[in-house]
Order: sequence, then structure tokens, then C-alpha cells
Amino acid sequence: MRFHAPRRLGIVGAGVAGALMSRAVLRSNRFVLTGLADPDPDVRNRVSAEWGCPAFIDATELVTSGTVDVVYVAAPTAHHLGAVSAAAAAGVHIICEKPLATTAADAREAVDCARRAGVSLLVGPTVSYDPRYRVLRQIVTDRRLGDLLSVQATSFTDWHRRRTRTAHDLDAAVGNGLLLRQGAHQIDIVRLICGGDVRAVSGALHGGAGGAEQGFSTQLSFANGVQANAYYDGSGAVPEADELFATFTGGGVRVHPGGLHLYSDGQLTDLPVDPATSVWDQALVEMDQTLDGRIPIHDGEWGLGTLATCLAIYEAAATHSIVFTHQSLYQEKS
Amino acid sequence: MRFHAPRRLGIVGAGVAGALMSRAVLRSNRFVLTGLADPDPDVRNRVSAEWGCPAFIDATELVTSGTVDVVYVAAPTAHHLGAVSAAAAAGVHIICEKPLATTAADAREAVDCARRAGVSLLVGPTVSYDPRYRVLRQIVTDRRLGDLLSVQATSFTDWHRRRTRTAHDLDAAVGNGLLLRQGAHQIDIVRLICGGDVRAVSGALHGGAGGAEQGFSTQLSFANGVQANAYYDGSGAVPEADELFATFTGGGVRVHPGGLHLYSDGQLTDLPVDPATSVWDQALVEMDQTLDGRIPIHDGEWGLGTLATCLAIYEAAATHSIVFTHQSLYQEKS
Repeated sequence: MRFHAPRRLGIVGAGVAGALMSRAVLRSNRFVLTGLADPDPDVRNRVSAEWGCPAFIDATELVTSGTVDVVYVAAPTAHHLGAVSAAAAAGVHIICEKPLATTAADAREAVDCARRAGVSLLVGPTVSYDPRYRVLRQIVTDRRLGDLLSVQATSFTDWHRRRTRTAHDLDAAVGNGLLLRQGAHQIDIVRLICGGDVRAVSGALHGGAGGAEQGFSTQLSFANGVQANAYYDGSGAVPEADELFATFTGGGVRVHPGGLHLYSDGQLTDLPVDPATSVWDQALVEMDQTLDGRIPIHDGEWGLGTLATCLAIYEAAATHSIVFTHQSLYQEKS
Repeated sequence: MRFHAPRRLGIVGAGVAGALMSRAVLRSNRFVLTGLADPDPDVRNRVSAEWGCPAFIDATELVTSGTVDVVYVAAPTAHHLGAVSAAAAAGVHIICEKPLATTAADAREAVDCARRAGVSLLVGPTVSYDPRYRVLRQIVTDRRLGDLLSVQATSFTDWHRRRTRTAHDLDAAVGNGLLLRQGAHQIDIVRLICGGDVRAVSGALHGGAGGAEQGFSTQLSFANGVQANAYYDGSGAVPEADELFATFTGGGVRVHPGGLHLYSDGQLTDLPVDPATSVWDQALVEMDQTLDGRIPIHDGEWGLGTLATCLAIYEAAATHSIVFTHQSLYQEKS
């Protein structure tokens, strides 16, 4: 049992992600919500009353107020680096929404800021925080089914139908667009299962009306020889589903909504996994454990690797070539 | 109604595929089985009695016997060109098992032989003969859901467990190996849906014990801009399943065991398709229609295109590059 007081958490950006995190904080006995920042005065005042916490104009004011130990950055991606560097300078730990930044250089700077300041930086919450993928990762690392050979991931979402997407919403140059914002979920999952270290990327985008990215497909080669295919469609035409198959030398695993199906020697073993908690709850758990000294999975280097992979898919699609990442962005952790 | 006598069909190679075709011929009222050829005298005599038809030593003896109008070539791939050229020289029409040959040059020669002789050459039967894929192809061509954007195909089979595979069974150089022998099914399906004309290929193989090809993944770009991902695992670890999603500007289609699910405007339409007949029955139907003057889908050029795509996946996997096919191997038919 740990008896320290709940950690004080502030939220930058009172949009959908911020609201989901506020609810996860309410459910947590390890965190308490002590502040929010949003540039829109109407939003700020309304949400401050709703969430029952003080409101600040921007990330800098929030992190320098002395009222937060951890900040969750859910502002638009173009503001991530500014918020991360302000938090790091103030000695505040950070959970930053994906993608970490809009360019690999900005993401590198964000990671370095946090490291120099000695604060913890997690990038998430993505769907890879889902405990089913932690279970699958464990099956990979303990070699229960032998060596992992390949992974195939398919995601169908209604991202384009959730609301009308403006041109700005879809502009990859400012960190928007389906691949950077939603692809990060799928790439995170695939990296988590395959070991993280992507060495070669091919990719193709498929476009919807008005040049919007409706989906993408990619093929990833990992440093350890594992191959992965990922296919994403965000049109909302097909019912929402995340499917993942992992093929091993000694069997296979299919991730389903309630857990995992293990296939080995012609036998099916059902591994139920409680999916009750959200990925926001899971991100809080990981931050809590990180502050207690555990090495996190979804740290800044991890987030940088996922961003770099997404950017490589854009490059591969635009140049009709395979993009090789010239140096490892990720060190496998024990 | 057509009143001509059943067409006389001979089978070269009394293995698994030959036996399946013999049963399809029994079910057909358009074909009658009049001969078989197999190099193994024990097999030849036993099967001749079982199928109730004369046996010949080799393809040449069968096609020059004057007893067959059509020959089904189910000998090992390395013997396809010899059997096709013998049949063409004898004026006998040909259904050749996939892959058409072990090299693109041999496949080209087989196609040219048949064309010069004025005989019909079909390459199959592959899973793309399944009527569900004909229905999906029709949805693409009549633009019922708008433009096709992308396709994702997943196949899990027990190919490696059906029997012990020798090194020869797995040798791509003689037309064996999982990708050439089984990949042809999946590539055929994807080509049928996407328009056929593959222009760029990336690919990766994943290997099982002893260097065998356990599966592959590939990303295909078509001349019409459609993107496709295909993933194949033949380990038998995961239950057998063929899944295919097609994403359109105005909806999506999921092929399921009993037919197709159409998604459009948030509505699901179920299109049941009778899967009762086998792909061997379907191949006989296509040959019958071809001999009545219809333009076939699975002609020699088609088979050459599928082989070339499979060979490009090998090349892309070996060279870690995207392979561009420099000229169209396929002319879209109306």
C-alpha cells in the first residue's frame, strides 16, 4: 500500500480528450483534478464550473501556478511542444496526447526538454494502453507460442463522421489528418506487439472526398525481423472494429473485444481481459507507476518513434518508395 | 437451352486437385470425363478404375488421343508449360492450375502457344472463382457504392499442416512454396476486385521452421489508384478464414462465408450468395461459357499477371524495395 496524497493533475485543452481524462481522474484514487487551461474564455468558464477546478488561460499559467504535479496536454498538436517545454521548465510531469508533435524535430526537442528537466513524459493515451495488448505483449516476450513472425492489424472507425472535418482538421502539416491523429493508435499497438523498432516502412493512403485522408495501409519491418501489416479506414462506412492477429512459430493469437484467443496445437484457449477501464485510466496508472520508479512503455522516445513511423508512411506514400529509418528510435526495455 | 453433346474433358495429374475436378465433372451436365494422365503407374491404374475413364502415361499421349476437347492440367507447376504446349498443338482447350508456370517467361510462352493455336486457356481454379467475388466485382464496376478506394484481404489456412512439406514442396524455384501455390488464390481475388492491373508491389515473407514460407504480406498499388493490402498465414495455427473488406467512397463491403455485407449510409444490406458449388465447378462453367464465345476473366493473360505479382512479392521481399511492374500485364475487360 502507498499512502502519499493524490497527485495533482491539470488538463490543458478542454475538448473531448480533456473531458475523458477528467472523468478518469474522478475515478482514480491516485490523482485529483486541480486545474485546467483553455484559450476560449467561454469554454474555460463553463468547464471550470463543470469540473470544479480553477481555470487558467494557457499551459504556462497552469504549470507555473504551483497547483499541479502532472499536466495532461490535450491541446491541438501544434501547441504540444510549447506546453511540454513550459511544463518541463516548471518541473511538472507530462502526459501528452498523440502525436507528440507535428515534426520529428519538435518531438525530439520535447523529449529532450523533459529529460533535461528530469520530469516524466508519457505520450498517450492511445489504444495501445488497452490491457489486451499488454497481455499479448507478454505472450511475445515470454515466448509462450515461440517466436513472433508477423502481425496484421485492421481498424475501422467513424472518425470522419464524428463531426464535419474542416480543411484545418485534415491538414497533416499542423499535426492533423487521419494518419497522424488516428493512425498513431494503430501504429502504437503494432509497435507494442512487434518490439517497437521500425526499420522499413511502405505505405499508401486512400483518399475520400475533397482530398481528405480516408484511410491508409502500411507494411512495417521491425529490427527483430517481425513483419506487420496495418490497414485503417476512418470513413465510418463499415462498423467500428479493431482486429489484430499475431502469428507465431508455435501458434497464433486473435485479439477480440473481450480478450484474446490463443491458438496452439489445434486448441483454442480463451484469455478474457477486463476491458472495463478506459485508456485514460490506463495512462494515469502508467504515470502513477512511473512516478513510483517503474520504467514506462509509452515514454517520450516511444511517442517520437510512433510519430516518426507515421511520417514515414506519408513519405513512402508520396514517393512510392520504402522508407528506411536510419537509426533506431527506440530501445527495447526489459 | 444448348443442346450440343457434353464436352470431353481429360485430367493431367491424379492428385488432390485432379480428384476435385473429377467430381466437378461428374456434377456437370456440360462435361464428361474421358481420360486422365499420370506418370505413376500405380496411381494411374487405381484412379482409372475409380474414375471410370482411360488412363494415359503423359499429357501428350492424352491430348493427342483424340478423346478430349478440354484438358485440366493439375501436374506439378514445372510441367505446366509442357502440357499446355502439347494441348495447344493438339487443338485441345486448357484449364491450367495456378500458378501458370514458374517464371514469367514460361507463362508468356504458354499464353502465346494457346493464342497461336486458337485454343482457350483458363488459369485456375482459384478462390477468385467463388461467386461472392464476382458479386463484389459487379458492385465495383456498376459503382453502386461509388469509387473503390482500397481492399484488405486476410487469409488463414492450414496449408503447412495438410501434410508434411518436403524441401521440394517448398522450393519456389520449381513453382512450389506457399506464396506461388497458395498466394495465387489471394492475389487473384484482390486483382479481380481492384481491376487487375498491378503497378507497384511491396512485400514481406514470414518464415517458419527450416526456412519454409509460413506466410506473407503485401501491399499492391493498381493502375486505377486503388490500394490493396493482403496478409496470408498458412501455418494452420489460426482457424481457416478468408476475410475481405472493400472500402468505397460511399460505403464498404465485407465478404463473409455466406455472402456479402454492404454498408452504406449507416445501413447494412445482406447479400446472400450461394456458395454451394466449388471453384472447380465454377471453372468448368467459365470454360463452357468461353467455348460458347464469352470473354473469360481467368484467361492466360490473367494467370500471367497473377504469377508476375507473386514473383514481384518475392523480389520486393528479397530486395527490401518496391517493385514496379513496367508494363501492364492485364487489359481491363468490359
